[in-house]
Amino acid sequence: MRIYDVILKKRNGGELSDTEIAFFIKGFTDGEIPDYQASALLMAIFFEGMNERETATLTMEMAKSGDMVDLSEIPGVKVDKHSTGGVGDKTSLIIAPIAAACGVRVAKMSGRGLGHTGGTVDKMKAIPGMRTSLSQAEFFSIVEKIGCSIIGQTGNIAPADKRLYALRDVTATVDNLSLIASSVMSKKLAAGSDAILLDVKTGSGAFVKNLENAIALAREMVAIGENSGKRMLALVTDMDTPLGCAIGNALEIIEVCDVLKGRGPADLTEISLVLAANMIYLAGRGTPDECRKLAEEALESGAAFDKLCEMTEAQGGDVSYLNDTEKFARAECIGEFKAERGGCISRMDSEVFGTASVTLGAGRKKLGDDIDFAAGIILEKKTGERAEAGEIIARVYASSEDKIEAAKDILKEAVEISDEPPAKKPLIIARVSKNSIERF
Amino acid sequence: MRIYDVILKKRNGGELSDTEIAFFIKGFTDGEIPDYQASALLMAIFFEGMNERETATLTMEMAKSGDMVDLSEIPGVKVDKHSTGGVGDKTSLIIAPIAAACGVRVAKMSGRGLGHTGGTVDKMKAIPGMRTSLSQAEFFSIVEKIGCSIIGQTGNIAPADKRLYALRDVTATVDNLSLIASSVMSKKLAAGSDAILLDVKTGSGAFVKNLENAIALAREMVAIGENSGKRMLALVTDMDTPLGCAIGNALEIIEVCDVLKGRGPADLTEISLVLAANMIYLAGRGTPDECRKLAEEALESGAAFDKLCEMTEAQGGDVSYLNDTEKFARAECIGEFKAERGGCISRMDSEVFGTASVTLGAGRKKLGDDIDFAAGIILEKKTGERAEAGEIIARVYASSEDKIEAAKDILKEAVEISDEPPAKKPLIIARVSKNSIERF
Repeated sequence: MRIYDVILKKRNGGELSDTEIAFFIKGFTDGEIPDYQASALLMAIFFEGMNERETATLTMEMAKSGDMVDLSEIPGVKVDKHSTGGVGDKTSLIIAPIAAACGVRVAKMSGRGLGHTGGTVDKMKAIPGMRTSLSQAEFFSIVEKIGCSIIGQTGNIAPADKRLYALRDVTATVDNLSLIASSVMSKKLAAGSDAILLDVKTGSGAFVKNLENAIALAREMVAIGENSGKRMLALVTDMDTPLGCAIGNALEIIEVCDVLKGRGPADLTEISLVLAANMIYLAGRGTPDECRKLAEEALESGAAFDKLCEMTEAQGGDVSYLNDTEKFARAECIGEFKAERGGCISRMDSEVFGTASVTLGAGRKKLGDDIDFAAGIILEKKTGERAEAGEIIARVYASSEDKIEAAKDILKEAVEISDEPPAKKPLIIARVSKNSIERF
Repeated sequence: MRIYDVILKKRNGGELSDTEIAFFIKGFTDGEIPDYQASALLMAIFFEGMNERETATLTMEMAKSGDMVDLSEIPGVKVDKHSTGGVGDKTSLIIAPIAAACGVRVAKMSGRGLGHTGGTVDKMKAIPGMRTSLSQAEFFSIVEKIGCSIIGQTGNIAPADKRLYALRDVTATVDNLSLIASSVMSKKLAAGSDAILLDVKTGSGAFVKNLENAIALAREMVAIGENSGKRMLALVTDMDTPLGCAIGNALEIIEVCDVLKGRGPADLTEISLVLAANMIYLAGRGTPDECRKLAEEALESGAAFDKLCEMTEAQGGDVSYLNDTEKFARAECIGEFKAERGGCISRMDSEVFGTASVTLGAGRKKLGDDIDFAAGIILEKKTGERAEAGEIIARVYASSEDKIEAAKDILKEAVEISDEPPAKKPLIIARVSKNSIERF
């Protein structure tokens, strides 16, 4: 077999056989197929697409390119969760404890933040002492004892995807649904859970901005997982507006604690309950309504917050910070971003908020950049609320006034104030399972 | 400017600016833009195409990536000729002397053969002593004194095209009209002639097998040349059947001499006269009819053969071989390929004949392969002629019986004998100029 013929076949609109896809992934991972042939094939796939079988095969081949984690020694149903990435999205740190409090096992590997979206592992690092790199034995033992553990993705999970993604990133071949779906799902299949809940973000701050594309992506990922014997559900959720009020690592941990203590922002609390309920449902703990109730009880009773503390302690984190969030170091400089006119906030562009938070030091422009855990943004107002001229819309936190000013400049583009209130949009837009698409 | 954005723009169907194309070619030639980004852009161009301006700019940028030969110190109109490559196509060696005998200056750089098509430089090398690598001073001086010289392409003519073609060759991005046109024309623009005659082959043995694609390619190349101030003409000619009767280097030189001595095959003589007449016309020597007459006279008077001998002598070749072609070494083994049944030869597939001649040793499977100058094929019959069962259709020449048998096996696929004679096809199918397409 020659990779040239595989490229030619796809370029001419052909359907690649399982053998051809396996040949490509193996050859590419081994370094036998050079990048310039891989990128030509990726661009041909961008134009000609892949059907469900091709996508499923590509996913499984990428999963098999590295370690396939075997979670079977941990008793119970293991449920994973993946978000396609948003601004202010700290739900993993809320729902893993809720689900664990309801008897679900969550053994989650999480990515680092890049660009305008943050990463769960970075947020965890804001808690002094927290370890996100554990041996497999320790990871398994925490999941078994406490019910949940979240760690960074190890290097040998789907290395083919890692290499391929790096190539797509520089050749304008990222935004293809089949390639996005196979990239996400290869890592999830390798991570070994029995069931997977996907949170597919859509809107201005999401990777997939168009709703129909987000639903198509959800369907594609659900199909891949089901084809590989996983129980799958996907929620398509809104990312037009940042989630909750906090953006930035320590600020988001404080907000996580607020939600788990029953005093968090309404939108973040609600989406967390919906996500957690669906994880509990995937674990077979009852009807959707029963699972929702279980999630609410875990939150209200404080059981979920206790799980976060137990997990933090097990992973070396200083739990006193969670009990008393005033202990988190505050940024040296704080700025105020104010309304230029009075009216109703009609738009708060998540992506621009994300970019501003990177400027403040809360995220990475490129791999290897340092993160300032104290930096970030607190929204004092959210979309739909009224603001008077000069009223504070957001506070910005950074280590220098220069960063504050730069971020405030960026934020001018992010907020729109109108005379009329904007149309109300649901937070949870659709729920996609193997056989149905429910729209809300 | 980032190459990522250029790829993205073309991928999204955008039109690249002159600056973007120049940035790509310069960066790629300098090695600053890696192959994997170049191949992604090439595949995007394959799918989204380039308009006439983009193609012209790409061509000029590739031409300017190396030496731009300045032929202005040679007096008179310099006319170049390019064939897109065929089987048994030795016309350059016939028409350059005819045109030179009519006062046209031909300073031609020619490629080497690869795959099933042969190269003029390889054929010339069959003449003992012939040098195809000359200093520019010597090359210019021969063109000025004798009227024509043919040499191999120097390394620094359109190096960007050389690198880009090598990449296209392994990434399934060769067969795009804009890319083919710009590749050919970049070398021709750099070679510095005032006028260029293109021989665009079509049919089974040609690179562009479909007639309408061949006409489109001819139009595109004519437009590029005219946009750069060159006088342009293109003939679209048939390559369903090998040209003349000889395939193979020394065998073709003998046939060149036959044509120039007035005793060559009718098809090869006719196409040579048409091509030569058009070169003479491009040099402004009269009406098409007058130029045709000049070409015929140069052939009949022996003036053209004399020019071939003068050029050969100037380039170190042993002219005695041209005067007495019996001197060329004959192959050690000769085989006979016979008709399996009686009837009319309805098809002789040029590409298969080309492949058989490579098997015999007359061509290269890959760059760097040695060539056996004595190897090749002589057609005893051509398409449209009758053959009785067992009658010889072709003789094959090689250094071993194994090669003879392998080639005879291949040739079985090349020849079709039917009860009915095939429809007659014209040898010259169309003539494309800046403003018109004439079909014959």
